[in-house]
Amino acid sequence: MEVYLDNAATTRVKPKVIQAVTMAMNEMYGNPSSLHKKGVEIERKIKEARKLISRSLDCREEELFFTSGGTEGNNIIIRGYVEANQRRGKHLITTKIEHPSVLSTFEALEKKGYKVTYLDVDNNGFISLRELEDSLQEDTILVSIMHVNNEVGSIQPIEKISKIIKNKNKEVFFHVDGVQSFGKILFSLTDLAVDGFSISGHKIHGPKGIGCLYIKKGWKVTPIATGGSHELGIRPGTENTPGIMGMAEAVKLIFSDQQNYIRKIASLKEYFYQMLMANVEDIKINGGDPQGTSINILNVSFKGVKSEVLLHSLEEDGIYVSSGSACSSKKRGYSHVLMAMGLKDEYIDSAIRFSFSDFNTKEELDYGIEKIQKQVNYLRKIMKR
Amino acid sequence: MEVYLDNAATTRVKPKVIQAVTMAMNEMYGNPSSLHKKGVEIERKIKEARKLISRSLDCREEELFFTSGGTEGNNIIIRGYVEANQRRGKHLITTKIEHPSVLSTFEALEKKGYKVTYLDVDNNGFISLRELEDSLQEDTILVSIMHVNNEVGSIQPIEKISKIIKNKNKEVFFHVDGVQSFGKILFSLTDLAVDGFSISGHKIHGPKGIGCLYIKKGWKVTPIATGGSHELGIRPGTENTPGIMGMAEAVKLIFSDQQNYIRKIASLKEYFYQMLMANVEDIKINGGDPQGTSINILNVSFKGVKSEVLLHSLEEDGIYVSSGSACSSKKRGYSHVLMAMGLKDEYIDSAIRFSFSDFNTKEELDYGIEKIQKQVNYLRKIMKR
Repeated sequence: MEVYLDNAATTRVKPKVIQAVTMAMNEMYGNPSSLHKKGVEIERKIKEARKLISRSLDCREEELFFTSGGTEGNNIIIRGYVEANQRRGKHLITTKIEHPSVLSTFEALEKKGYKVTYLDVDNNGFISLRELEDSLQEDTILVSIMHVNNEVGSIQPIEKISKIIKNKNKEVFFHVDGVQSFGKILFSLTDLAVDGFSISGHKIHGPKGIGCLYIKKGWKVTPIATGGSHELGIRPGTENTPGIMGMAEAVKLIFSDQQNYIRKIASLKEYFYQMLMANVEDIKINGGDPQGTSINILNVSFKGVKSEVLLHSLEEDGIYVSSGSACSSKKRGYSHVLMAMGLKDEYIDSAIRFSFSDFNTKEELDYGIEKIQKQVNYLRKIMKR
Repeated sequence: MEVYLDNAATTRVKPKVIQAVTMAMNEMYGNPSSLHKKGVEIERKIKEARKLISRSLDCREEELFFTSGGTEGNNIIIRGYVEANQRRGKHLITTKIEHPSVLSTFEALEKKGYKVTYLDVDNNGFISLRELEDSLQEDTILVSIMHVNNEVGSIQPIEKISKIIKNKNKEVFFHVDGVQSFGKILFSLTDLAVDGFSISGHKIHGPKGIGCLYIKKGWKVTPIATGGSHELGIRPGTENTPGIMGMAEAVKLIFSDQQNYIRKIASLKEYFYQMLMANVEDIKINGGDPQGTSINILNVSFKGVKSEVLLHSLEEDGIYVSSGSACSSKKRGYSHVLMAMGLKDEYIDSAIRFSFSDFNTKEELDYGIEKIQKQVNYLRKIMKR
C-alpha cells in the first residue's frame, strides 16, 4: 500500500487538473500577447481563470496576478513593496516561523540596511498580539505574517492582526503568506483586510510552477523583474497558460464544495490523531490541540525516535511523511519553527509532520497507524540498547 | 486551413512533450526536496533532464539552472550579476534591439544609477564591433547582447563579440539572450565563450513557464528572489517538475536530429521567401539577405499596407502572423527594433513577421502566399482610394 501523508509539501495533481493542463497545451498554444485570434482567445480564457480564482479569494480580478508559485509571490510583494516605499521607512516586521521564502527575503533586506523585527511565538506557534502592537514603530512600512504554518499548522488570527496594524497606522502594508491556508480555511480577503496575499497551485492539487499574488488596489510595488506588460508589469514573461488553466481547475474543484472538502480532511486528521493517541505511547502533539491547527497538518514528536530514521523506516512500508519542512529539508539542522516554539531538543529531534488530503482514506490511515506503531516500538527498542 | 506562422512568439507543444508533462503530473507529483523516495526519485529525474539540456548547450550540469522562462532568466543574470558586482563598476553595455525583458531591465538599472550604453545597429540589425570595442570602459562590468533578434532574425557574431570583450577585459561578464537561437543554430557554449545564456521552453515546442539559465562557473550572482536552496539558491521555489520534463523532451526531440530540423525549417523559409518575391510586388525584406538571418524568421514590409490591417485580414483566412514583437505587441507604437535599424516610417508601419516551425508544410505556405497576395492587392487598392 502507498500512503502519501506529505500533502503540505506538495499534493497529487487531480485528474481534471491534468486534463485542463493537457487541453491547454494541445489547443491553447498561442501567445496571449499576440494580436491575432490565437492570442486573443487565450487572453480571454486567462481572464476567466483570473475571475474564478479572484472570486474564491473574494478580491477584484485586477488585484490578482499570476506568478510561478508561492516563493515568487512572497518575494515580489515583500521586495517590491519595500523597494517602492523605501523612503517612507526602514523597519519591517515578520515572525520567527515563516517559510524560508519569507525569512530569507527579510534576511536579504537586513543586508540592504533594513531593520527587521522577528516576532516570537509561544509553545503552540502563535505570535503575541501585544508584542506585535509594541513592535509597530513610526518607520514600520511592512508586516508579513503567515496564515497557516507549514510545519505545525498553527493558524494566526489574521483579522485581529490586521486591525491592530491598521489601528496604529493605515499606511503599513500587511502581507500574508497564504500558501498553506488557501482552500483549507474558509476566509475572504475582504474580511481578512490584508493588503497582499500569496498562494500556490501545487499545494491544492494544481500544477507546480504556478501561483497567484493578491495586491490590494492602490499600493505601489516595484517589480523584481521587468519585461513586457504581462500581469500589468508586476510579473512579466509569457503567461504560463497551461499552469493557469490547471490552477483554475484545481480552485474550481475545491471551491465548488469547499465545506465538504474541509470536513473530509478534518475528519481524516481527527481519526488519525485519535488512533495515534490510542496506539502509540510517549508522543507529543506540536502546535497544541489538533482541532485548533490546520485541518491537514499534524506534527508529532515520538519520544526517543530520531525523526529521519522513522521517516525512512516508514518509507519502506510505502508511507511518506516529512521531518521538518520539506522545502528546506535538504538543510541539515533543527527546524526553525520548532525551535522558535521552544521545544526541547528531544522533541525537535523526533518530530514528524503528517499532512493529509482528500485523496487519503481511512484504510490508508489504519495501515499507517499499524506501521507507525510497529516501527516506533522497534526503533525505541533498538535505540535503548 | 489553419497556418500558424507566429512561431517566434510561441510554438505548438509537441505531442511527446505533452506526454512527458502529463506523465510527470501523474507519476512524479512528489516534492523533489522531500527526503523520502517520492522526492529522491524526482530529484534524480530532474538531474537527468539537466544533464540532457546541458549537453545540448555544451556546458556543465552544475552551470545550468531551471527558471520560469526567458524573461526570468534575463532578469536573474543581469540584475543578479550587477548587484553582486556593483562595487566593481557602474557601466553596462547592451544593444538597441534587445527583447523587452533585457531592455527594460537596463532601464530599471539606469534608475538605480548605472550608466548604460545602448549599441546602435545597422540597416540589417547588426551591431558594429568597432563601436562595441570603443564602448568598453574601465568600469564596464557587464555586456548583454542577444544571439538572434526576435523581430527580424539578425544573428550577432557572438564568438567574435566575446573575443573583443575578453581581449579588453576578462573581468567583464558577457550575457547572451539565446531565447531565439537555441535549437535553431548549431552552437556550443564552450565555443561561444559566453558567461551567461538564457533559453526558454515554449519557443522550442516545449511548455510555457519553463526555461534555463546558464551561468559559467566562478561568477558571483545575487539571486533576485530568495527561499529554499533549490537550483543552488539561484532560483528558489519548488521545482516545476512537469515543466522540466517537458522542456527536456522538447530539447531531446530537436537535438536528436538537429541538422535535419534546421534544414527543414530553413527550406520552408527559403520556399516562402522565393514564392513571396515571385508573387507579391513592392515588398522589402528587413534584416538583409534571408539566408543570413535566422532559419525561422522572415520580416517583410508590404509597402502601402498597414501591418495591423494585413494581420487581421490574414487572420480571417486562418493565417497567423505578427506585426512587431508579440511580446510587446500590446504596447502601441513602432517597433523599437525596426526604428533602431533606421527603417523609414512607411516600412515600419507595414512590417509583418512570418516565423516558421517544422509543423509547417509547403501546402500551408502555398495557401499562405495565395492569401497574402490577394489581401495585399485588395488592401492596396482600398488604401489608394
